[in-house]
Amino acid sequence: MTIDRTTLRWNGWGPVAQENALPDGAPQWDWIRTTLGMPHLPNTPAKPLSDINMPACRVGDLVLAKLRAIVGEAQVKLDDYERAFHARGKSYHDLLYLRAGKLDMVPDAVIYPRNPDEALAVVRLAAEEDITLIPYGGGSSVVGGVNAMAKSLGSPVLTLDTTLMTRLIQIDKIAMTATVEAGIYGPALEEQLQKHGVTLAHYPQSFQFSTVGGWIAARGAGQQSNRYGKAEKWLVSARLATPKGFWTTEATPASAAGPNLNQLIAGSEGTIGVICEATVKIHEVPARKDYRGYLFKNFASGVEAARRINHADIPVAMVRLSDAQETHFFQAFSSTHSETGLKARLQRAYLRHKGFDAEPCLMLVGHEGDAETVIWAQERTEAICAKLGALKLGTGPGQKWYHSRFNSPYARDPMLDHGIGLDTLETATRWSNIGKLHKAVVEAIDGAMKANMPEVTGRGIVMAHLSHSYPDGASLYFTFVFPRQLDREVEQWQAIKRAASDAIIENRGTISHHHGVGTDHAPWLAEEKGPIGYNVLKSLKRELDPTGVLNPGKLLG
Amino acid sequence: MTIDRTTLRWNGWGPVAQENALPDGAPQWDWIRTTLGMPHLPNTPAKPLSDINMPACRVGDLVLAKLRAIVGEAQVKLDDYERAFHARGKSYHDLLYLRAGKLDMVPDAVIYPRNPDEALAVVRLAAEEDITLIPYGGGSSVVGGVNAMAKSLGSPVLTLDTTLMTRLIQIDKIAMTATVEAGIYGPALEEQLQKHGVTLAHYPQSFQFSTVGGWIAARGAGQQSNRYGKAEKWLVSARLATPKGFWTTEATPASAAGPNLNQLIAGSEGTIGVICEATVKIHEVPARKDYRGYLFKNFASGVEAARRINHADIPVAMVRLSDAQETHFFQAFSSTHSETGLKARLQRAYLRHKGFDAEPCLMLVGHEGDAETVIWAQERTEAICAKLGALKLGTGPGQKWYHSRFNSPYARDPMLDHGIGLDTLETATRWSNIGKLHKAVVEAIDGAMKANMPEVTGRGIVMAHLSHSYPDGASLYFTFVFPRQLDREVEQWQAIKRAASDAIIENRGTISHHHGVGTDHAPWLAEEKGPIGYNVLKSLKRELDPTGVLNPGKLLG
Repeated sequence: MTIDRTTLRWNGWGPVAQENALPDGAPQWDWIRTTLGMPHLPNTPAKPLSDINMPACRVGDLVLAKLRAIVGEAQVKLDDYERAFHARGKSYHDLLYLRAGKLDMVPDAVIYPRNPDEALAVVRLAAEEDITLIPYGGGSSVVGGVNAMAKSLGSPVLTLDTTLMTRLIQIDKIAMTATVEAGIYGPALEEQLQKHGVTLAHYPQSFQFSTVGGWIAARGAGQQSNRYGKAEKWLVSARLATPKGFWTTEATPASAAGPNLNQLIAGSEGTIGVICEATVKIHEVPARKDYRGYLFKNFASGVEAARRINHADIPVAMVRLSDAQETHFFQAFSSTHSETGLKARLQRAYLRHKGFDAEPCLMLVGHEGDAETVIWAQERTEAICAKLGALKLGTGPGQKWYHSRFNSPYARDPMLDHGIGLDTLETATRWSNIGKLHKAVVEAIDGAMKANMPEVTGRGIVMAHLSHSYPDGASLYFTFVFPRQLDREVEQWQAIKRAASDAIIENRGTISHHHGVGTDHAPWLAEEKGPIGYNVLKSLKRELDPTGVLNPGKLLG
Repeated sequence: MTIDRTTLRWNGWGPVAQENALPDGAPQWDWIRTTLGMPHLPNTPAKPLSDINMPACRVGDLVLAKLRAIVGEAQVKLDDYERAFHARGKSYHDLLYLRAGKLDMVPDAVIYPRNPDEALAVVRLAAEEDITLIPYGGGSSVVGGVNAMAKSLGSPVLTLDTTLMTRLIQIDKIAMTATVEAGIYGPALEEQLQKHGVTLAHYPQSFQFSTVGGWIAARGAGQQSNRYGKAEKWLVSARLATPKGFWTTEATPASAAGPNLNQLIAGSEGTIGVICEATVKIHEVPARKDYRGYLFKNFASGVEAARRINHADIPVAMVRLSDAQETHFFQAFSSTHSETGLKARLQRAYLRHKGFDAEPCLMLVGHEGDAETVIWAQERTEAICAKLGALKLGTGPGQKWYHSRFNSPYARDPMLDHGIGLDTLETATRWSNIGKLHKAVVEAIDGAMKANMPEVTGRGIVMAHLSHSYPDGASLYFTFVFPRQLDREVEQWQAIKRAASDAIIENRGTISHHHGVGTDHAPWLAEEKGPIGYNVLKSLKRELDPTGVLNPGKLLG
């Protein structure tokens, strides 16, 4: 029920044995090269693991013996592949290091507890021995959340991999909750639940390679969070292995018995304990799904539609509005063949005639549930979109998106092989501030890309979509693609990241809507939480992990 | 924009000048007396304030001078009425003390800051001088949440009354949020908001005499929480005056930037700071309201209907299901005249014929929103109720309830005048556990009432309703009425309260769904949160209020 690490790329996305999503000679390459203003596409392959000198394991024999006594001989891994696999997560920043073979930051050993009791014993041993312990689920963090950083320079690091803890403990079909061990991967979880006709329906883009515990630890969001909620919403109760023992949080549907501590677990990023089990809200597998597209004349009218859909209490699963840049990019990227055909030319003429040629923005709306509700909700959605001047595109664009909804990350490795950088970041803000924040972040990223170009002809692309909406606001997700400065690629990325993050905080967005804080957003957390809130988080850490062995450097920096 | 304390009862509910809800000679009295098995109704009036010796003010002149310098002369109150008014909240337990004139626990002075800066200065002064400070809004706590307990025996106590802080700071009609000072009472808030066409729609039974800050501090619920959410759901951000300075919590619609600290504010009960301002989610004033009744053959089928309504994602404002005892009680209480009429007899015969005579349970369902949604949702609700064998009662019972929805608390004072005790308590649990918890708590209260009766003929009544529902469960609200043991009335209440609370915790309910913890539920909090969770709360308190001056004895005991 889990995924053998040796079948997965240690320095990229997905299975070792996958097909290349963008093989050399694919029609997109020429368009990408031209768009990015690159005279040619360089060859920048990743360094193979066999060429990398792995640092020696620094964990003493006595501790290794104790670990083996807890989890069994086979569950203590010291081999190069396991250590390299667990060195970092899957951010662009991480991949720069991994692909360059810079493995100075790797765990000395990887421990796979088979159940929560073993996990607790490992946590306690780490606390007693004062050894850094990094909780690790699927390892898909894109913010440095699982990086094997030691609590002090040069001291040993253990990674606790949760993915042998995969039991489905209970399904309650009356309360519609399920209790599971938190190391279970997305597909295994859904397979088990759907056998019983139920679903958690948490489908982040990382779904195939991320775990329940990771979703909670990072306050993740599935693509259909409008209907199923972010992790902090579907989390009912968690059981954590902490240095102080097991902590099982309150599990009542609502309570006035003091502050809700589940909201401290969601977003705790392994800094106060290892999430071993979770009770989560489940749903009947929806009888009907309806995904369709609308074209808006500009981003502002699409945002207004998203807001009205939310405020009209229409039960939507997803409202995803691309800005004009993203609409253009995906259109161009997926239709390099037919651009010159008669049909395409007629379509363009029609759109120009209707006023959609300047900055058209694609919105995808998903409805899920029983047939009656889906039909009713879809009709109401359509009426709102029509009122705001949108063009109905039918179910075609919706189905196309749905079938390729986990695909984007696979395109990154081939781009990295050819000197191209690609990263994403995300935020959320109130409805009245969406336009301002969108503009500010686009300008910040654009400016930083311009200031950090490898050659005069080089150009970056930045685009965004709104994808999770709430009564008071929505999230914005930015993607940026750029020619890499091969001699200073980390610095180039840092400059862009810093500009974007500063713009987010200055313009009252959150530093992350669903990726988490990790190491990469830690410098901005204190400002977001304020000095008192930040000290509250530090006091929580001190209370539960007084020696600071759990995931140092993450969240609180 | 606030309510002068001298116009309100210091030892009971509502205005001094109100009409008696149950005057001597009202037809209900005979029914109550018979039902409770009381040979006669004793006369047990409250002691007037003029007959009570108020302890001398123990706050030194220097501190009083500093307080006056902060808030102005007129906002430091030392008179008997103000001190008595702020001695306790409005629980049955509180009223036993207040009505008996036992005012050993009163604040030495009551301070009314006029704005958050003054509130902060008062909080800081209290911390510096190590003087207990009790934050107080409407004072409607029914769990001892505002009682003037000193941090150490015999030391002075100040109460900080927030009700001069009532400004509406901002309305954002795009994001649908409002920022208000937290001392504003319910009616003043709604008056201000509704001028702009918007509403918070938080209508607890205490609405007329409770404040925004109190709702947040106690994680309160309005009667229409299904649509508008409990306080922790509509709270966007809060600004607290703490001994460490102002703490303004994060205000983004959703975030993965670490734990959500707003969820520490909701339920903090004045133990870590004074909530001075809050940003809250607002809604358009609903164009349509539809409240109607259904009669179920038993509680279980009504619970099943409530669950299905929730799981079908039908947008309801309220689903309120009385158990058979409560259905009978309110029917009898409101229809003592017509019981013997022909129409009533025919109705009873019809219900018997249809199988509704054994244990009929009344459900009230409220829909609010735009007309189209209300009609659609109402039809779907009706279909679910019909499928479960319910009898449609139309809008009559719904409208009747709606028009008297704040009235129940007014009946308590006259009952207390005649030797009758009346208290309520509430909990929540998952759907699969509702039946078991309902039975266990009814039996516990019933057993404890039987074991604590003033005379052999005496009988208590216990009844319940389900009134706030969630995907994973619902709340249960219990009301119990009993002849008082006049020589040991506190002990009698404690015995009933203890039995009910033990039953709740043993049967996996929360010790409170919306009343809060205060002093009365504090003994059960550690078990609900678990030892680690409890220590986390204590560490939060230590971090923000290291000398423990804020609302001692509440929440954490």
